Amino acid sequence: MADPVLDFWLELGSTYSYPAAMRIAPLAGEAGVRVRWRPFALGAIFKAQGWPADSPFNWQIAKGKHMWRDLERICGALDLPFRRPDPFPQPSLLAARVVLVGLADGWGEEFARAVYRAEFGEGRQIGERSVIADLIAGLDLDPEQVLAKAQSEAIKSQLRTETEQAQRLGIFGAPSFVAADGELFWGNDRLQAALAWAKRGR
Amino acid sequence: MADPVLDFWLELGSTYSYPAAMRIAPLAGEAGVRVRWRPFALGAIFKAQGWPADSPFNWQIAKGKHMWRDLERICGALDLPFRRPDPFPQPSLLAARVVLVGLADGWGEEFARAVYRAEFGEGRQIGERSVIADLIAGLDLDPEQVLAKAQSEAIKSQLRTETEQAQRLGIFGAPSFVAADGELFWGNDRLQAALAWAKRGR
Repeated sequence: MADPVLDFWLELGSTYSYPAAMRIAPLAGEAGVRVRWRPFALGAIFKAQGWPADSPFNWQIAKGKHMWRDLERICGALDLPFRRPDPFPQPSLLAARVVLVGLADGWGEEFARAVYRAEFGEGRQIGERSVIADLIAGLDLDPEQVLAKAQSEAIKSQLRTETEQAQRLGIFGAPSFVAADGELFWGNDRLQAALAWAKRGR
Repeated sequence: MADPVLDFWLELGSTYSYPAAMRIAPLAGEAGVRVRWRPFALGAIFKAQGWPADSPFNWQIAKGKHMWRDLERICGALDLPFRRPDPFPQPSLLAARVVLVGLADGWGEEFARAVYRAEFGEGRQIGERSVIADLIAGLDLDPEQVLAKAQSEAIKSQLRTETEQAQRLGIFGAPSFVAADGELFWGNDRLQAALAWAKRGR
């Protein structure tokens, strides 16, 4: 029988997607679950709900303050480097498109982790083409070739389609996890529960 | 040396405060932490932020849908009865005031658990005076006497003062946990981390 599958919906600019992206591969390995990484554009979902396109962590002041402290504690417990990016959120569309290119080519997960590390571990500007080029080069790939593909109409359209699919699945935040039966789990805190659900196959 | 202390800020109408209230006593016992139960009125904090007084789970549709399913899963895992109250949120001021009376008198925690069980385990109308009277009677107390105290100006004023204090501490949701050094943890998911923090005494 094939391994059960869990879809990992990630937004490259999302704070809690950082620890989730760093933890998911070993945890899924232990659980015997195959994970599909599915980048999407959370800002578009906020907009479609009539919300400000800005992160709720910016306009919900007290909640935002807690989130940064909470993320710092979580990263500390996981031994992950943490540095708050400025500005937040970072423009993430280009990074998401490169991840889509990489997922079709076998290096998408590694690149996504490199983006999160640069963004939330080193405070780098992941909205800048030169930073993304640098991260691509770090995987021994040709940045110009990858970036041209990432900015093609096909990839732009794929990211839009994935985002629409995320919304249809009821996704409203990131990270989110969706099992084969449609069961939705939201948040880094739900990663283990989602894997257990996928494993039980219901 | 005295046991370390953790403040447990609860809203009697809050969904995730239900599992937190049911779990906190044994977990705190194991951790050797003394917990102070501090009811407050979350709706007043929403209002002060310029938000609708209604629960965000009602006007954030997709998030609300996930929350109910998530709460059902959490209750299932903890073997807690679950029944979605209608309407939600239930008016919770009277219940919160009775908890304040009870906390000064030694039965506040038990009463708060009875409220949550009635509300989220049995779907009862905890905004109704007769239901609250019933729950008070269930503790072998005189409902009329307790209700008169709960509706006194002194208790109403205490709940307002506690709510203002919650807001000053940066609280924006429930349940929340605050250690002696002011460290704030939000959410049922953070209960163990908050207890560990309080225990380390930093």
